[in-house]
Amino acid sequence: MAFNDLFLRACRSEPVEMTPVWMMRQAGRFLESYRALRKKADFLTMCKTPELAAAATMLPVNEVGVDAAILFSDILIPIEPMGMELQFTPAPLFPDPIRNRAQIDALRVPDPEESVPFVMDAVRLLRKELDGKVPLIGFSGAPFTLATYMVEGGGSKSYIHLKSLMYQEPGLYAALMDKITDTVIRYLNAQIAAGAQAVQVFDTWGGILSPGDYETFDLPYTRRVIEGLNREGVPVIHYVGTGSALLSKIKEAGSDVVGVDWRIDLDEARKILGPGIAVQGNLDPTALFAPIPEIERRVKEILDRVGDAPGHIFNLGHGILPPTPEAHAKAFVDAVHRYSKKSG
Amino acid sequence: MAFNDLFLRACRSEPVEMTPVWMMRQAGRFLESYRALRKKADFLTMCKTPELAAAATMLPVNEVGVDAAILFSDILIPIEPMGMELQFTPAPLFPDPIRNRAQIDALRVPDPEESVPFVMDAVRLLRKELDGKVPLIGFSGAPFTLATYMVEGGGSKSYIHLKSLMYQEPGLYAALMDKITDTVIRYLNAQIAAGAQAVQVFDTWGGILSPGDYETFDLPYTRRVIEGLNREGVPVIHYVGTGSALLSKIKEAGSDVVGVDWRIDLDEARKILGPGIAVQGNLDPTALFAPIPEIERRVKEILDRVGDAPGHIFNLGHGILPPTPEAHAKAFVDAVHRYSKKSG
Repeated sequence: MAFNDLFLRACRSEPVEMTPVWMMRQAGRFLESYRALRKKADFLTMCKTPELAAAATMLPVNEVGVDAAILFSDILIPIEPMGMELQFTPAPLFPDPIRNRAQIDALRVPDPEESVPFVMDAVRLLRKELDGKVPLIGFSGAPFTLATYMVEGGGSKSYIHLKSLMYQEPGLYAALMDKITDTVIRYLNAQIAAGAQAVQVFDTWGGILSPGDYETFDLPYTRRVIEGLNREGVPVIHYVGTGSALLSKIKEAGSDVVGVDWRIDLDEARKILGPGIAVQGNLDPTALFAPIPEIERRVKEILDRVGDAPGHIFNLGHGILPPTPEAHAKAFVDAVHRYSKKSG
Repeated sequence: MAFNDLFLRACRSEPVEMTPVWMMRQAGRFLESYRALRKKADFLTMCKTPELAAAATMLPVNEVGVDAAILFSDILIPIEPMGMELQFTPAPLFPDPIRNRAQIDALRVPDPEESVPFVMDAVRLLRKELDGKVPLIGFSGAPFTLATYMVEGGGSKSYIHLKSLMYQEPGLYAALMDKITDTVIRYLNAQIAAGAQAVQVFDTWGGILSPGDYETFDLPYTRRVIEGLNREGVPVIHYVGTGSALLSKIKEAGSDVVGVDWRIDLDEARKILGPGIAVQGNLDPTALFAPIPEIERRVKEILDRVGDAPGHIFNLGHGILPPTPEAHAKAFVDAVHRYSKKSG
């Protein structure tokens, strides 16, 4: 079987004979086979057991026909060995959130192969298993998004603790972000060394910042991450949730691909990003609850907006939702392939 | 005391000697006096008792120095008499959310003076009490935002139920939206007849829609609301949360003022909206947790972005957060006045 490198070529804005597609959170609860796997182990155990993580990673490749695999893991995995106890309740929870200098001083910048070897082991396992199929994407949270969890202790509506730290103690905030940034660089480079063929930086919460605050408190750290990667031959995807108003700044972070949510049309996004940057997106994940002909219509509409210019990886605008009907996810992937296929 | 009509003139894009300012949710828990008032009655009782609603409305006018009063109420108040039981737990909850045609057919379009007379009574009380001070803003949720609560049953992360209804049963969705739209028009016109001097349409959740879906499933109804108002001399403000990517469509709804959150710079927003539409916003509510000099710097930065062109009402980009220090809210209002005051 020939290696399907559609995804890697699209990341490099090279011409492709068909638009590649994958789905954020594609190894997840919408799959019956994933729910069966989860009966054997809780979420953290899955993340920390290379065989289980690899098995979950493979499910959507084998069952849904996506053009890339993304490592089954969680963005908070590399944070735990910085010195923070992590629980899933099932929502992620740091019982002892970061609120003062002493806590920040105590944070470590861990060696990934020592602290989270199971991640790299899963990557190595997967490269063997995937060989001849599709590329493997590694990933990390962006420093800002990781900081939201570390300072708030979990999810948040208003991010009062984190923004208070930013506004009241910018020096302390910078010290925290420096440590997270260094951790992320080491973590992603370890995944690349282990065999990840592309990496995605998830800045899920970057869009809660005003343009000015994004430029001051987020962008410099994301840019440092991207600059710090051993990215020779390894495309970097940069996804910012609710980031449509920030695209002119996001492009300065220097990624090969920018992931875009559904709040902006892709032709509009490409106009702002300019040539040379590929885009990834952007069907609203709830659109997968529409009847299949309507899903197909929406896929076609997005493909039409992108047109013939190279540099498009199809994806959802956010992670696939657990109650999504499996058949609809498959119909989505099939529609991308069918409608984008160049004849001849 | 002369009538302070700064707010009304700014809504009409007329020149003003000082930028008017108010804060969404300004009659709320951040005020100690409000928390004292709430000891006497629960939230729904406050909304339904004209004297209490009027007393809450007056607090920020008297204590914080804002240039407009906004009626103390909740966007879900007019929905209850459509035939839906409403609870606050304290989050809003409809125990019997709308999921089928029979439920939609059963919804009434109530007469506001019969069904929620306490709202209009509060408006009448307030016009007497405010006379000689500042204008009174009435408000309603936009049809789409009201539909999110009615169909989801409360707040939501992904809006699967509402979006499923939209995508699977567009005719049913339209029937629901028609009834909500008619209810909102009657409700706002009743507030105007009772004496509201401006009205704001809150489309808090409009920004969860893609541009195409916004155009199909939200904009036509908001436009119908605005077209249906007896707006002679009564400016209409249209606020869409996370709406920065939708501004070119929002302007088609036809309001006098567009409320903008902090995710886009105001000069950028004005460029998209074009001349003749005033803007309202847009300090990040969490910026009020910054030290006062930093709040002042941010106020000045926003004023500088707007420049001398008329048509700016200063506000937060979203409701003021309950833990906001009261002194910081006052410093914010003072800073807007001080920095925007035209000399001579």
